[in-house]
Amino acid sequence: MRQSQDELSFSKRGISLVGQEMFRLLDKAKALESQGRHINHLELGDPKNAKGAKNYPPGRVINKTIESLLHSNVGYSSSLGVMPLRKAIAEYVSRSSVRSFTYENTAISPANMLIFQLVDLICNPGDIVGLFAPYFPSYLAACNYVNTDTRCFELSIEDGFRLTLEKIDEAFLNPPKLLIINSANNPTGAVYGRKELEYLVKRAREAGSWIVSDETYGLLTYTKKFHSMSAFDYERLVIISSFSKVFNIPGYRVGYALADRRVIEKIGLSSSTMYSCLPVFTQEGVLDGLGILDEFSNDRRKFYKRISDRCVKIISKSPSLSCISPEAAFYLFIDLSRLNIDGAEFSQILLEEYNTAITPGASFGCRQFVRASFCGSANDVKDGLEKIVELADRIAGRR
Amino acid sequence: MRQSQDELSFSKRGISLVGQEMFRLLDKAKALESQGRHINHLELGDPKNAKGAKNYPPGRVINKTIESLLHSNVGYSSSLGVMPLRKAIAEYVSRSSVRSFTYENTAISPANMLIFQLVDLICNPGDIVGLFAPYFPSYLAACNYVNTDTRCFELSIEDGFRLTLEKIDEAFLNPPKLLIINSANNPTGAVYGRKELEYLVKRAREAGSWIVSDETYGLLTYTKKFHSMSAFDYERLVIISSFSKVFNIPGYRVGYALADRRVIEKIGLSSSTMYSCLPVFTQEGVLDGLGILDEFSNDRRKFYKRISDRCVKIISKSPSLSCISPEAAFYLFIDLSRLNIDGAEFSQILLEEYNTAITPGASFGCRQFVRASFCGSANDVKDGLEKIVELADRIAGRR
Repeated sequence: MRQSQDELSFSKRGISLVGQEMFRLLDKAKALESQGRHINHLELGDPKNAKGAKNYPPGRVINKTIESLLHSNVGYSSSLGVMPLRKAIAEYVSRSSVRSFTYENTAISPANMLIFQLVDLICNPGDIVGLFAPYFPSYLAACNYVNTDTRCFELSIEDGFRLTLEKIDEAFLNPPKLLIINSANNPTGAVYGRKELEYLVKRAREAGSWIVSDETYGLLTYTKKFHSMSAFDYERLVIISSFSKVFNIPGYRVGYALADRRVIEKIGLSSSTMYSCLPVFTQEGVLDGLGILDEFSNDRRKFYKRISDRCVKIISKSPSLSCISPEAAFYLFIDLSRLNIDGAEFSQILLEEYNTAITPGASFGCRQFVRASFCGSANDVKDGLEKIVELADRIAGRR
Repeated sequence: MRQSQDELSFSKRGISLVGQEMFRLLDKAKALESQGRHINHLELGDPKNAKGAKNYPPGRVINKTIESLLHSNVGYSSSLGVMPLRKAIAEYVSRSSVRSFTYENTAISPANMLIFQLVDLICNPGDIVGLFAPYFPSYLAACNYVNTDTRCFELSIEDGFRLTLEKIDEAFLNPPKLLIINSANNPTGAVYGRKELEYLVKRAREAGSWIVSDETYGLLTYTKKFHSMSAFDYERLVIISSFSKVFNIPGYRVGYALADRRVIEKIGLSSSTMYSCLPVFTQEGVLDGLGILDEFSNDRRKFYKRISDRCVKIISKSPSLSCISPEAAFYLFIDLSRLNIDGAEFSQILLEEYNTAITPGASFGCRQFVRASFCGSANDVKDGLEKIVELADRIAGRR
């Protein structure tokens, strides 16, 4: 194809589109691998099912997906997801909530897609959106896409990156149209307290603000109690979650939203406009998995807690690095501030010279950090973290 | 959940979102079925694999998908799609084109998603977009979403709904930023001529307009030669297509775009922002299917041609109805103008009193038509079309 150098005439949104850093890193790492190098993959929250990794997806999910394929369930489904899964999720969440949800409160859609859909359904260009940093990059990507007036409120490492009453007050100085929160948090593993969440809803209710609560990692909270915002009855509150992380199936792209019936209807219209529907067979696989979700996630929590402890120990070997012990999920958010180096530069050297892919903190709103995922293959994680220590010590002039 | 009657504060786009009529119809038909009624499904282009339907998906596609699942390929993949599929599609298209494509010209994404992504990447609000009616509803849905200045140019039934030089001239009176065309056409089954497509590119080149050519049904052109726009070398031309219809797997949600490298890069950024990536296992299934695509689609063409002839014969039994014989795909676009009834009203009576779901022509920009899909189960199609004739004759006062 002809590649003239003059610019094509993309739209403003097309020109300003930046995409997701993690996927760019994945592509870069894969390009290096195609040159024959082995890369330690610590960049994505992609639970590896390489041998020895001990985090295979549940056999039930895979088997049921296959059964569904053998029945040729390969046609269109409803844009809101298959009804039995909508009902089952509503029932599952209602069991552990003080409130009661029905399928009318439930939409199936990839969680990343839901972030975009909700920002777009709620916000006009210029509307104020509040994020608490560190934040999951998709929130900012969706906000940039819609061109909102996005404001970041930095949580502090001294508070263990947990949400505080003061930060909530700060976020409401100029009442936002929408606040997006993420507990259990990616990248920090922090789990927010009940008191703070209750206060957040109170303030949002007073201001008429929307809240999107991303609870993808809620079931992966190690030992502390996880507080789901599904406990609060507020019509402008939307809970989103996903089966990607808890079932080790990010490639399935099955997530869900719980919300007021009218919000769910809008999500259905958005999904039918944007991508029609999700496959039936992946949804049927997940549906069957729901029967063992408690048991499976309980096992995963213990598993990640064990690995987390080991990983924090490796990082703490370097006097130049520090990180808080995560309370949930499978990431270390590593502080580089003692090294006087930007997370992006650190990540680049690490990939090029140490064959280890991690994500720069800037993607989460914190330049002096990097995120290392420890859900990958055991060897990648151990070797990768040791390489991080090695590079940090080299930069600090200790080697 | 509390359902207060006051309006929630959605965004402008949220408020104006209309969704896809066909999915609303599907939901409505399914609701009726849940009351114990049998509904003839002629509303969606959803190749049925009910017994006796003779349009199962290729075993190779299903088997390879299952094999991939058994290998636990359930992690993230590249936002542009898995590399072997990108390469294989580029190679496949290059074989039958005068031009040569590489993986850099190829993005994997659901075709419906690509329509939205491309309109969004190319158009600012207020930009002129030209559509030729009848058009596939997703084009208008995407344009409304982006809030373009959308202009429809009606093709005439006398021209067999084919694109003409005059219509092209009309579309360029006010040069559009983007033109979306669809040959082989859904809903009419018309296949556009080489001379017209060549002229379209010439005019677009002169005006600097973009062209998105949706060729989803190209391989399902019965006997006439199908002209793919992949023959033309123009940097603002994007070809989109899908495996949904030709492999009977709309639930897989695997489509692709062929374009200038810079356009493909933008699509990758858009996909990583919006939905991260597609499953690996569905892409691997499709990849294996490519080996039999020619053979399989050849068989499908003959199959649909046979059914098409039978279906046209049923409709022509009614002196109140008419339709052109499709040259491709699996839809009848039925003219109701002799009945003095709106397609929406006709469809509603047909669903409620005759248990048959079809799509009102208004979805395609033509109020006095309805679309009936004949890729469903043989019984549904035969009985459904007879019910259409029955209702038409009743309205015309003949029964």
